[in-house]
Amino acid sequence: LMGGSLALALHGKVKALIGIDHDPATLEQAAVHFDRVAADFTLLRQADLVILATPAQVIIRLLPTIAPQLKPETLIIDLGSVKAPIIAAMRSLPPDIYAIGGHPMCGKESSGFTAAEPGLYVGCTFVLCDPGDGRAREADRSLAESLVAAIGGRALWIDPVAHDHAVAAISHVPYLLSSALMAATVQAADRDLLLTLASTGFRDTTRLAGSDPTMMGDVVAANAEAIRAAWESVRAQMDSLIEGLTAADPIIQQAARAQLADVREARRTWGESFAARR
Amino acid sequence: LMGGSLALALHGKVKALIGIDHDPATLEQAAVHFDRVAADFTLLRQADLVILATPAQVIIRLLPTIAPQLKPETLIIDLGSVKAPIIAAMRSLPPDIYAIGGHPMCGKESSGFTAAEPGLYVGCTFVLCDPGDGRAREADRSLAESLVAAIGGRALWIDPVAHDHAVAAISHVPYLLSSALMAATVQAADRDLLLTLASTGFRDTTRLAGSDPTMMGDVVAANAEAIRAAWESVRAQMDSLIEGLTAADPIIQQAARAQLADVREARRTWGESFAARR
Repeated sequence: LMGGSLALALHGKVKALIGIDHDPATLEQAAVHFDRVAADFTLLRQADLVILATPAQVIIRLLPTIAPQLKPETLIIDLGSVKAPIIAAMRSLPPDIYAIGGHPMCGKESSGFTAAEPGLYVGCTFVLCDPGDGRAREADRSLAESLVAAIGGRALWIDPVAHDHAVAAISHVPYLLSSALMAATVQAADRDLLLTLASTGFRDTTRLAGSDPTMMGDVVAANAEAIRAAWESVRAQMDSLIEGLTAADPIIQQAARAQLADVREARRTWGESFAARR
Repeated sequence: LMGGSLALALHGKVKALIGIDHDPATLEQAAVHFDRVAADFTLLRQADLVILATPAQVIIRLLPTIAPQLKPETLIIDLGSVKAPIIAAMRSLPPDIYAIGGHPMCGKESSGFTAAEPGLYVGCTFVLCDPGDGRAREADRSLAESLVAAIGGRALWIDPVAHDHAVAAISHVPYLLSSALMAATVQAADRDLLLTLASTGFRDTTRLAGSDPTMMGDVVAANAEAIRAAWESVRAQMDSLIEGLTAADPIIQQAARAQLADVREARRTWGESFAARR
């Protein structure tokens, strides 16, 4: 999804596009959109810029594997959803290979090349992380920014640890909550009644449970500590909301209702600004 | 939203539509769609069927208030999102007033007459609860079913307690989770970064936090016990998913990933059948 959409968005804007994937079916679907495709790493030597668009754990394994196959001064950018462990792996690359962490804040629950679309990155905040220690030169940072601009995204440079804490809260925990809600529903004794009565609210709240479980399993394993902290804070809000809204004391109940009204207002404000950005 | 949409859907299908609301602005917006509107209860005496489309706590207060104003054999149907406490209040009505509990499983986060639409109930499962004890005659049940059919809904008779447990799981807890997620986000130290990075997944997972806080505050207070049980089961799923996905033992981690894949499949199956029903 992410690599294919990037290739479609870059079509005609780069000297040549080379696609590498281990799956023959994907290569066949992708072939017409690339100048060359391959199932092995031999074409890597031709690249000036390598984009790694695989699950996070695969990126960490690929970095030392592909490094010896690259020509000197090649720049690597990854699209992994967790940044600190990938940045750490980038710092161990040979000194003549340059690297920048990337994470486009867009996607959809469908995956694979057949779900790719050239407009996926339009209006999307595209996180970039500089590994430091001279691992990215000024020209590399400019190239990364040009790449993001070329596909319609908005580059945002941030620290990898700050990134990982933020995505735990706004992406990984929402995914897990969506999955936990769906799991609790299908395991309930009155499961059939629940699934009959469930409507648009349930549909939206559980949409993320349709995400790719391999990719998300990798992400959760790689970002465990930040996810536990973000979950703890949602859990505390949930306990406090339920306690307040069901309190016998009308003053406590009123305070909890006022918080619901504040939260609704915050959601409305954010929703409008998000819609305007895209 | 619910009462206004019902009136729009019933237009031309009933002898006369009378709208009663305490808010002058709502009456003005609604006037053209009703035969008569009023801010007080004097017109109630003309009704054969009274629909109560207010928050649940208001329904419970209204039932004994309006009963003396109704002519004998009038049928009351409510649209409240919690059924057991409303059914209990219906059982205390005078013996010549008939009543059926109703809960249409549709809606949207916007509220008020300006958000009303005649197609809101099309394809929607419309729960009906018979209070028993002769409170609804066969003719009353038939009238309720005809009403649901006339607006394009699908009537489903269920027990009020079973209903309340089900909606706690598929509606009230999802609403509270959505609000808790939004509350945790706006109270985080890195709030601005979170709101910048949040994207479509966060948008969908928090959509319900935009619901009417008065209506939802009423609902949560009226359905506290079922909500606590449903939340406890989502919380346990969440703890178990996080523990499994971050386990050092690869067999445990693999089992948690297999559960994610099962959940995704269950969500896909439900999503397709829900889309087909509407």
